Amino acid sequence: MLQKLFSPKSIAVIGASRDPGKTGGVIFENLINGGFQGRIFPVNPGYADIRGVKCYPSVQSIPEDVDLAVVVLRSDLVERAIEDCAYKKVPYVIIVAGGFSETGEGGASLERSILRIARESGIRIIGPNTVGIYLPSVKLNTALTPMDRVNFPGEGSIALISQSGALGLLMMDGMAEIGTGVSAFVNLGNRIDLDESSLLDHFASDQKTHVVMMYIESVSNGRKFYDALRRISEKKPVVVLKSGSTTESARAAMLHTGAMMSDDAVFHGVINQAGAVRARDETELYDFARALAYSRPLLGDRIAVLTTAGGAGVVSTDLLTSSFNGPKMSLATLSEKTRGQIAEFMVPFGSNSNPIDITAEGSVEQYSSILDVLVHSGEIDGVLAFALPQTPRMNAGVVDVIEKYSGETPIVVGVIGSRLARPLLFEFERRKIPAYPSIGRAVSSLKALRTYWKHRGDGHE
Amino acid sequence: MLQKLFSPKSIAVIGASRDPGKTGGVIFENLINGGFQGRIFPVNPGYADIRGVKCYPSVQSIPEDVDLAVVVLRSDLVERAIEDCAYKKVPYVIIVAGGFSETGEGGASLERSILRIARESGIRIIGPNTVGIYLPSVKLNTALTPMDRVNFPGEGSIALISQSGALGLLMMDGMAEIGTGVSAFVNLGNRIDLDESSLLDHFASDQKTHVVMMYIESVSNGRKFYDALRRISEKKPVVVLKSGSTTESARAAMLHTGAMMSDDAVFHGVINQAGAVRARDETELYDFARALAYSRPLLGDRIAVLTTAGGAGVVSTDLLTSSFNGPKMSLATLSEKTRGQIAEFMVPFGSNSNPIDITAEGSVEQYSSILDVLVHSGEIDGVLAFALPQTPRMNAGVVDVIEKYSGETPIVVGVIGSRLARPLLFEFERRKIPAYPSIGRAVSSLKALRTYWKHRGDGHE
Repeated sequence: MLQKLFSPKSIAVIGASRDPGKTGGVIFENLINGGFQGRIFPVNPGYADIRGVKCYPSVQSIPEDVDLAVVVLRSDLVERAIEDCAYKKVPYVIIVAGGFSETGEGGASLERSILRIARESGIRIIGPNTVGIYLPSVKLNTALTPMDRVNFPGEGSIALISQSGALGLLMMDGMAEIGTGVSAFVNLGNRIDLDESSLLDHFASDQKTHVVMMYIESVSNGRKFYDALRRISEKKPVVVLKSGSTTESARAAMLHTGAMMSDDAVFHGVINQAGAVRARDETELYDFARALAYSRPLLGDRIAVLTTAGGAGVVSTDLLTSSFNGPKMSLATLSEKTRGQIAEFMVPFGSNSNPIDITAEGSVEQYSSILDVLVHSGEIDGVLAFALPQTPRMNAGVVDVIEKYSGETPIVVGVIGSRLARPLLFEFERRKIPAYPSIGRAVSSLKALRTYWKHRGDGHE
Repeated sequence: MLQKLFSPKSIAVIGASRDPGKTGGVIFENLINGGFQGRIFPVNPGYADIRGVKCYPSVQSIPEDVDLAVVVLRSDLVERAIEDCAYKKVPYVIIVAGGFSETGEGGASLERSILRIARESGIRIIGPNTVGIYLPSVKLNTALTPMDRVNFPGEGSIALISQSGALGLLMMDGMAEIGTGVSAFVNLGNRIDLDESSLLDHFASDQKTHVVMMYIESVSNGRKFYDALRRISEKKPVVVLKSGSTTESARAAMLHTGAMMSDDAVFHGVINQAGAVRARDETELYDFARALAYSRPLLGDRIAVLTTAGGAGVVSTDLLTSSFNGPKMSLATLSEKTRGQIAEFMVPFGSNSNPIDITAEGSVEQYSSILDVLVHSGEIDGVLAFALPQTPRMNAGVVDVIEKYSGETPIVVGVIGSRLARPLLFEFERRKIPAYPSIGRAVSSLKALRTYWKHRGDGHE
């Protein structure tokens, strides 16, 4: 399903330009510079070649199969291009231009004409009004924004579906900061054909994708969306940032994409019932996606908190056991036996009951021994582990320790501070261990992990 | 008040050591290396000098006045050192060692003996069980943690009072990451004498401090705290992270510092009634403090949102107009006249009604013109401005624009992404404009700003 869209072997750029100031120039250049691993065919009747690449007067005149056409023409020229694509039997088309339904009835009418051609010919369309797709596995990037203005993530297991192009690109930029990878990025734009539901169905069966994150302001078909969301959620987690919750923002969303809003309470129910997880902003979206992509399933509420700074233990206990930003969870009650074992690995003034505080005197070895006791105690479902490398006996070795036990138990990590903390955050991410630079973000992500697995059914993996 | 504690001209280090593996060695070395701008007198009967600095057998034998003594001795030796300080008329003493009330009745008894001497002699004490103080203005740092493991902030206008040493240091490390400065840091520890209330009173009259941020797990005297908090809140904002809200975390906090917890609901009421602002984790603590320290007073609820990415406008409108993490605020309703003026500076498919979206086509000049219209419209109380530099016509010049209008209207900035966004975040901070790398953090900080000013009284500055 959507196979050739997500691993195209050849691309036509309809409206490619020699002028680097024009959209058709930037997109063509980005494809070339990005190192796309298939054939690229520029289409423009005005040129014989662009940057030494043979240019075709029309898509029909390309002598090979075209898996994907990127249409970089003004809105009034798009219909004709789609007709050409139909003739050429191009299976997938991305329409970049704006100037469609988001601008009024004239644009909406254009969309209907284009959709009619698509339906008759079997062409599937992304857009219009979209920055298109980004596929790190084949080095395909149709986004207009050049690589020196936004960081694009490397390969990873998180797919990103975004109704908004700009916010989608900024989210990728944010994810790339600490090295989070994506399997694919798709900007829906006005989604006259392929919509959030079709893409959820695709990613449900996409081997490379383990988690889907999604930014939407509205859905094109509520029932279809719910069904698709429920189906995929049985197989892999979806995190949804749905904006336009309030009356004021609903109006803003309508102005932004021309889509009408559904009622937020209904929508919230839909997400919950389907078994997806809701995020409140772009940071939560990728925070939650990382926890769900990297951690083992969290199959119960009994959390152990392990820290070298008592304060981090207390603040996180507060948030964990409150209903703020996710379900109330509980601190695991440790048996006398387990507490006795833990006490052997800490100074007398540490705390061997949960939250476990081995204090600034705690060493990597003690941290490891206590994690070992916890993981094998049968008394916990998951661990919130603070990796705070600034004390004398702690160091980057704490990453190895946490990595080891992450294979056995879900562990979410808090890494507070900057000097030694920031490199550690990168290293956790490199090893695909969910780590967060604030207590609140770590706790909320742990709750998101629980929200998904609680719905999917404890005991099932 | 507490004058010599916060600008000491001379310090004695009682228990200074030549051994860099010992606490008394590290602290002495940190003071020397840190470049403390007063006299340093090591005290240790075992040495004639330490690193070439003349060493004294006792604090009494120091031939000059001592403004502050840092006692780096084991708990059982502290009482004797305090007697010596009383004899020498040292006005302020920091007791670093743990092993007092947090370990049980023996330690509590030691504390009482020490406090008795302090009361009789007039000595004021910070601690015990504390990392002490950090004062960038005189380059004084009594923290054990070496500078190569934690970043210490430069001079700024935010004072930090922390009951926890480790969390306090990690918060400073976090603040230093983007260049936020502090006026002073104090770790309360077991606070047998100087407590959160005394320090609030001090910072209320400290010219260098514009905002106080505070991490506490309990208060030593509820009534005194409320009065101090109310007094200072009339003059400058205080942001409080009070942990130990839930039963489970209250137990954790008691284990951590030996302090009994008050009821959280009561405490929450105290903070609100006193006119302070509450934070939920360490990141919110410095997020809110920065907004309050840098922004002009936010004297009403009418917010204009200005963005080049529609999605950021919609998500932030959602959060602003909901009661999530702060008061419900409202989007300013712009008059037809104002909307007409705004429309002149944007492409036709932009949104001239609030949230104002000048789209990816928007330029720095248009952004500036629209801010000018908004600020002079009389229709708004503050601006949530997204500075998203990745589009072709935006650039770092947006910082100049926002800086200019920050002088006239409260502006909180969202800077999403990393590649171009992160340098911008640093630049905003350098110019003391509150900027945040996530939509949620920007909105919550704007709400914190409103919470403070709403209580203090709209119309008063």
